[in-house]
Amino acid sequence: MARGRPRKTDPEAALQDIVRVFWEKGFEGASLSDLTAASGMAKPGLYAAFGDKQAMYAKALTHYFNGISGSPLADLVNSSDPLRDVLRRYFVSIVETARDPTTPSGCFVVNSLIESGSMPAALVALSREFDRRRRDAFRTRLRAAQQAGELAPGTDADALADFFSSQVLALAVMVRADTEFDAVMRTIDVALSALPGRPAPDRPD
Amino acid sequence: MARGRPRKTDPEAALQDIVRVFWEKGFEGASLSDLTAASGMAKPGLYAAFGDKQAMYAKALTHYFNGISGSPLADLVNSSDPLRDVLRRYFVSIVETARDPTTPSGCFVVNSLIESGSMPAALVALSREFDRRRRDAFRTRLRAAQQAGELAPGTDADALADFFSSQVLALAVMVRADTEFDAVMRTIDVALSALPGRPAPDRPD
Repeated sequence: MARGRPRKTDPEAALQDIVRVFWEKGFEGASLSDLTAASGMAKPGLYAAFGDKQAMYAKALTHYFNGISGSPLADLVNSSDPLRDVLRRYFVSIVETARDPTTPSGCFVVNSLIESGSMPAALVALSREFDRRRRDAFRTRLRAAQQAGELAPGTDADALADFFSSQVLALAVMVRADTEFDAVMRTIDVALSALPGRPAPDRPD
Repeated sequence: MARGRPRKTDPEAALQDIVRVFWEKGFEGASLSDLTAASGMAKPGLYAAFGDKQAMYAKALTHYFNGISGSPLADLVNSSDPLRDVLRRYFVSIVETARDPTTPSGCFVVNSLIESGSMPAALVALSREFDRRRRDAFRTRLRAAQQAGELAPGTDADALADFFSSQVLALAVMVRADTEFDAVMRTIDVALSALPGRPAPDRPD
């Protein structure tokens, strides 16, 4: 019925568009006109549905983390596949999401961690909360691997968790910086070589 | 003579202040009033000395890269110390700079790589150029290490270079995200464990 650009009335669909704008342009870089244009909602409807720019960003980052990040993180924690396979699958999924041509480049959470210098404190805290949850997932998985005998008893599982968790940051920036795909995949291979093998079966106590 | 806030007339000193503003707040996040306040220069003087915001940012990023990054990168390429020591020293220097309480948190170049979605194309290209130069320095050093017999002959020196270069990205984001210092240092330790030892002296051809 409406002439010109159709207006969306479904906040869920509009939120997907808002995620993309903030993921691509950041909190400061995203203008109100970017947000209305992308979402197809006029300013009053946008504000009524999501609140101000800060509230909108918080909802977008949360939607991203629970949606795009949620499934690979659950797999990382819960899969009973060998640790090396689970880690590789997780990193490859991160790279695939970060390189997906239908969405902005990189990782929205990593972008958000970087923009902390020009963001409201509550958004800085939210970004760091999601960063911490990812690190906790790695910690849970590495400790479980150690208990299951996938790592030598003396291995520092938490140090490995810190390291592997930080590879997500490296991979996300590499993709955002348009680094050659081969270099990104080689980085995953070398990172996985830091994984110590399981102890030799006959190793004495 | 002037009353109130003293005005600076030394563009070199003002550039240091401009670096800090962009490093902290990003290209979009830095307002003109941030730049005039930090530099102590009024708008006409600022523009006369540095050009518009884009030109100012390019000069600031270049100043940062050649200044703060220059000396550790030269050490990485030129030092004759053992590879492992040189790499550790480089990573520790990155972390120290990123954590220096007298300057903004993180690495200005890494921040700039992330902000690509809301930046003029020339600044995106400049950020990637500095990223590439760092990666080239790692490649030069790792190839030299292989030629000097510090790596086993079959080692893929370029893959190691890609990996170690990407650790700078991970460390910079970790510091920017205020990750615990111990976790940052553990990440360096684990990353260095990916370095294969030199071949045994008696290894047959």
